[in-house]
Amino acid sequence: MSDALNRIFNAQSIAVVGASNDPAKRGNQAIRRLRADGYKGVIYPINPKATEIMGLKAFTSVTEIEGDIDVVLVCTPAKTLPSVLDQCGQKNIPGAVVLAAGFSETGAAGAEIAKETLAAARRNNVRVVGPNTNGVFNLHNNMNMVGVQDADPGNIGICSQSGNMMLAFVTEAKRRGGVGFSSYVGVGNQLDVNLAEYLQYFGDDADTKAPVFYVEGFQDGRAFLEACRQVTQKKPVIIYKSGRTEAGQVAASSHTGSLASSFALTRGLLKQAGATVVEQSDKILSIAEGLSKLPVPKGGRVAILADGGGHATVTVDALVDAGVELAILSAGTTQKLRGVLPAAASCVNPVDVAGGTDDDPSVSAACAEILLADENIDILMVIGMYGGFAARFNPALLDNEVETSQRLAAIAEKHGKPLIVQSVYSALRTKPIEVLKEAGVPVFVWPEPAVRCIAELVGYAQARARNAASPRVVPDGPVAEGTAILAKVAGSNRDAFYEHEAKALLSAYGVNVPGQYLARSEDELAGAIGTLGEAPMAMKVVSQDILHKSDAGGVKLKVTGERALREAYREIIANARAYDPDADIHGVLVAPMARSGVEIIIGVVHDPMFGPVMMFGLGGIFVEVLKDVSFRALPMSRADAHEMVEEIQSSKILDGVRGGLPVNKEALEDLMMKVSQLALAHPEIKEIDLNPVILRNDGYDVVDARMILKSKGHTSD
Amino acid sequence: MSDALNRIFNAQSIAVVGASNDPAKRGNQAIRRLRADGYKGVIYPINPKATEIMGLKAFTSVTEIEGDIDVVLVCTPAKTLPSVLDQCGQKNIPGAVVLAAGFSETGAAGAEIAKETLAAARRNNVRVVGPNTNGVFNLHNNMNMVGVQDADPGNIGICSQSGNMMLAFVTEAKRRGGVGFSSYVGVGNQLDVNLAEYLQYFGDDADTKAPVFYVEGFQDGRAFLEACRQVTQKKPVIIYKSGRTEAGQVAASSHTGSLASSFALTRGLLKQAGATVVEQSDKILSIAEGLSKLPVPKGGRVAILADGGGHATVTVDALVDAGVELAILSAGTTQKLRGVLPAAASCVNPVDVAGGTDDDPSVSAACAEILLADENIDILMVIGMYGGFAARFNPALLDNEVETSQRLAAIAEKHGKPLIVQSVYSALRTKPIEVLKEAGVPVFVWPEPAVRCIAELVGYAQARARNAASPRVVPDGPVAEGTAILAKVAGSNRDAFYEHEAKALLSAYGVNVPGQYLARSEDELAGAIGTLGEAPMAMKVVSQDILHKSDAGGVKLKVTGERALREAYREIIANARAYDPDADIHGVLVAPMARSGVEIIIGVVHDPMFGPVMMFGLGGIFVEVLKDVSFRALPMSRADAHEMVEEIQSSKILDGVRGGLPVNKEALEDLMMKVSQLALAHPEIKEIDLNPVILRNDGYDVVDARMILKSKGHTSD
Repeated sequence: MSDALNRIFNAQSIAVVGASNDPAKRGNQAIRRLRADGYKGVIYPINPKATEIMGLKAFTSVTEIEGDIDVVLVCTPAKTLPSVLDQCGQKNIPGAVVLAAGFSETGAAGAEIAKETLAAARRNNVRVVGPNTNGVFNLHNNMNMVGVQDADPGNIGICSQSGNMMLAFVTEAKRRGGVGFSSYVGVGNQLDVNLAEYLQYFGDDADTKAPVFYVEGFQDGRAFLEACRQVTQKKPVIIYKSGRTEAGQVAASSHTGSLASSFALTRGLLKQAGATVVEQSDKILSIAEGLSKLPVPKGGRVAILADGGGHATVTVDALVDAGVELAILSAGTTQKLRGVLPAAASCVNPVDVAGGTDDDPSVSAACAEILLADENIDILMVIGMYGGFAARFNPALLDNEVETSQRLAAIAEKHGKPLIVQSVYSALRTKPIEVLKEAGVPVFVWPEPAVRCIAELVGYAQARARNAASPRVVPDGPVAEGTAILAKVAGSNRDAFYEHEAKALLSAYGVNVPGQYLARSEDELAGAIGTLGEAPMAMKVVSQDILHKSDAGGVKLKVTGERALREAYREIIANARAYDPDADIHGVLVAPMARSGVEIIIGVVHDPMFGPVMMFGLGGIFVEVLKDVSFRALPMSRADAHEMVEEIQSSKILDGVRGGLPVNKEALEDLMMKVSQLALAHPEIKEIDLNPVILRNDGYDVVDARMILKSKGHTSD
Repeated sequence: MSDALNRIFNAQSIAVVGASNDPAKRGNQAIRRLRADGYKGVIYPINPKATEIMGLKAFTSVTEIEGDIDVVLVCTPAKTLPSVLDQCGQKNIPGAVVLAAGFSETGAAGAEIAKETLAAARRNNVRVVGPNTNGVFNLHNNMNMVGVQDADPGNIGICSQSGNMMLAFVTEAKRRGGVGFSSYVGVGNQLDVNLAEYLQYFGDDADTKAPVFYVEGFQDGRAFLEACRQVTQKKPVIIYKSGRTEAGQVAASSHTGSLASSFALTRGLLKQAGATVVEQSDKILSIAEGLSKLPVPKGGRVAILADGGGHATVTVDALVDAGVELAILSAGTTQKLRGVLPAAASCVNPVDVAGGTDDDPSVSAACAEILLADENIDILMVIGMYGGFAARFNPALLDNEVETSQRLAAIAEKHGKPLIVQSVYSALRTKPIEVLKEAGVPVFVWPEPAVRCIAELVGYAQARARNAASPRVVPDGPVAEGTAILAKVAGSNRDAFYEHEAKALLSAYGVNVPGQYLARSEDELAGAIGTLGEAPMAMKVVSQDILHKSDAGGVKLKVTGERALREAYREIIANARAYDPDADIHGVLVAPMARSGVEIIIGVVHDPMFGPVMMFGLGGIFVEVLKDVSFRALPMSRADAHEMVEEIQSSKILDGVRGGLPVNKEALEDLMMKVSQLALAHPEIKEIDLNPVILRNDGYDVVDARMILKSKGHTSD
């Protein structure tokens, strides 16, 4: 696989099927662009009706060509594909880039052609890019099959389900300067090569420092997550997932027919896999620029060197919003800064030079040297109008400022720490700004994109370290007790577990389940008191036919003493029978009342795209009304469980409310890991729902638990 | 006032005090820039040591000059100001722009000079811009006192506490093209003219279509809100408030010494006054561009005309995120679109031309005509690569595309509906793009800034209509019963109301307060039953010395029957005495238990910057932990109350939880208006706190109410 993609992106020879002398045809444009861009490989035009195309000898078929061919660019219509691929097979050509539309996206006839094309690709061992792609470029190989102009080489890789999105990156980069691209692939219909494989390619490609993926839908989400986890150990991966909203999904689906999991779920899983998930398309390029250029910092403490209070304040606000830490300068640093800055300067963070660089921009480099040498500082932002001193104050400062730019870049390089510059003169691309960019320093007009770069850089560093250090936990296999419980449920011809069975299974995996007692008859209630004591009890009907136990009058709370238990039992049974005369009533479950605390829920579902996924959230309105939940794919690491807990918007509630104690997060994460083990050990369970679990400072109570087997009878939801 | 500012911004004659022949001096730069920019007025250099400056006759003092002078640009140091202003007074010069720093921001000596300068300004009737400003420009008067290059004329006004921020707007506008500025003022220390006055000026200035304010701190928040309310009836006002976060406030305060109210409060009040509040500096310019160019739409229904599915999806996601409505095209529109677009096109919203414009860009104009004629559509977005068809596909399309740009602008103009274009070719500033911009159509590279423009435009239209239609409600004066209650509290030498007094005052303003009964002794409890009936009661100790009644054991709930009431009474009194033996215990308040519902809180505080302000939020953790609250200044309108309720993040909870009924929002808003009347009628009340109020479908219960008088003894918090 990797070898085929490698030959496609780095082709030394290209055959163009459907080459043409008509300048309006793609088969002409592609050859023109390849030659205009100085492509150094061999181009073979294929056109049975011509002997010569644009001065090159034309061939009837690839099979006529003597030399090796790395890739075929197919410009002919969909229906020609099977035979073109057969010819490629005969020539042992590893890859074909197929522009034609008219496959599955157009209906049944197209789907048939798609099927035949895929079969031809497989039997001929040819990997297909597309179809319905606008092509591939590798600017480090001067190979531009897309025909797009103005693409500057650099280190951002693009893999996109939208050609216009690539155009937007290319034109915006042209305007900004200092940023460019390694390779691009338009994935089209992903008939053959899928997103995970492209990601592996970009992961291995030395010219790509930061791959960017514009994704409308994942076809094999699990494989993509695995690729992402591997590649992010080497380089950051930036993902924009379009169709985040319901209306957006409708729009995307009419575009590509892609299925979509909920965005909140997708985002959680991508984060877990180490990806940098961007939610606004206008932020992608600046984040990619920052991540492709800057070294990975050791920590996240940011120092600001500003030449104006306004932008310093804006930057601080943006850093706080983004959750980035402001460095506390060491005393020595403050003292050294006082030595080079005027008296009015602020020598704490943010440092404000108070005009101290207006007459001599090199003071900026002196300050940067002091700041970057400070062990309390991981990242430096230069903020304000650096690069515009000569332009604004005195043209005679230009040499000084250009030299300072070189020094700034060298100082950052020496310390191995990220340096990022925000300058109001960046839009005018003054010489000192351009020198910074050439030296690999990202420069932005506004503080916010610079801050976003830093936030994502710090996030990437943390995710990479987390995934390297915190292994995903996979069980050895099911425990015997668990297997027995599942056999019993399955043997009873039920999909749904009784609550006591679900709790027993949780207990088999080490979950601390409160004492429980199943009374099959009123007389068995004495046993409940014997087992559980005299404390107030919760009583719940056990019936596979009654899902909403409260609505059915099937729940009694705070019941104390045998007499009351008996009375409650009778009422519960009577209510349940009244609610559903045909219900199969298995008994009444008795358990001590849970003490009060914070309600949470933990669930496991099987996502059609991504497989088993854990969900976490606070209970009640937080899940039901505010949808404040976090997701991770299973298996997951302990660190993942920790992040799930911290990620929800209402997580502060877990830290204690109205002076109360915080909940025991260790115990919570422990519980999540045990549920995850259970789910992995028994993949035949479709759904697990612990709702609610009550968390306290001294532990938790699983108040209710529901599990459903993968359906034999029911339809899956 | 307005007249003085008018003469400053539109000066026909400028005296430069401290004019110089030294090119490094501001008194030289300013004259150079004025002449380079083609300033048509008269320039009078003032310098007692020169006879001629840059070829102009120099004067010893303004008093020597014969003609009228509109403004003096003062380039001399702080200490010269009082005498310079005395000279201005002799010449009846209305305004002085003072560059010098060294006033209050530098300490006690500077503060003294500031005081003398202000006194001189007042006695001479001279309005002072600054000091510590980088100046003023009016590009429609070719008057640039700032000396900044590259500023393009246009219709955005800038009023900024940061000179660098203005530079950022100017350089970014230069890069983008098609957007420019009317006037700028750097407000500096606001020694004399304040933000409210500048806002009035920009409101009256015909060249300014959208004033932008970069604010670090308001000096007279109330006056600014009133100015904002007036000006926004004429044009949108865009405000960026820096120092939004606590760390940002520290940074801003070290910069200008400005005091700051909480950002959440400031934002709520500015919104109420009709302002467009922007929270990221990099978004300001695009929003200002959109608001300065586009007509105010009649509604908020957006249609998308896209030439690529990718950007259409991104746009839909962004619109949904921003809460903007997608138009539902009329059947006739869909039918007409089918007539001009290929079969594969999507003729619902988003419209996707599916290649239908590639060969003939004029099809875009035909579609725009169809869409803008649809009464279901208020706003049109053209999305994708319009403006790049010639560049991308065929240079021969250029004339067609340029003409289409003219047609698009004309169609939008004809229908009086906003048209906004997102094009990936915008960054390359192709001719069709530039033609659109010249015709007043905003064009952006990315969908998100275009969507933000629309969201803010729709928000502005709504706010303007709201403030025009929904008057702020002011009471005629205090009701007699209220005055009596206040007199009693004040006469008892207390700041804090007893709960029953607070509830009685609420009742005097029409608030539906549950029956209550103050028992001063155990024997009076029988009266409680007589008055309130036999229902379960809540009992609370009444003591000005016990603030946290529950902590003191001073609350008993669900108490039923006289015997239980008596027992509870004794316990409450005993607990209170044990808690604080010196407490002045006034009795026990008895009231029926509130029925369950959604807890909310309503508060009124006196903000030092903005005066009386109402706060609203859900009770408990939503206020205490999640800080999810909304604010409006009093007096407010019924529409303001409605928006406060809708604005909180957890507002969905009010619409019903777990299938329950929604709360009665009418009753809630009614309650808010009554509390607002109470607060306005009795400005001597410092703080009002209804916490909690329990809302239900059939009304509300004020469970607890607290009020505090403006302090005679205690220090204010």
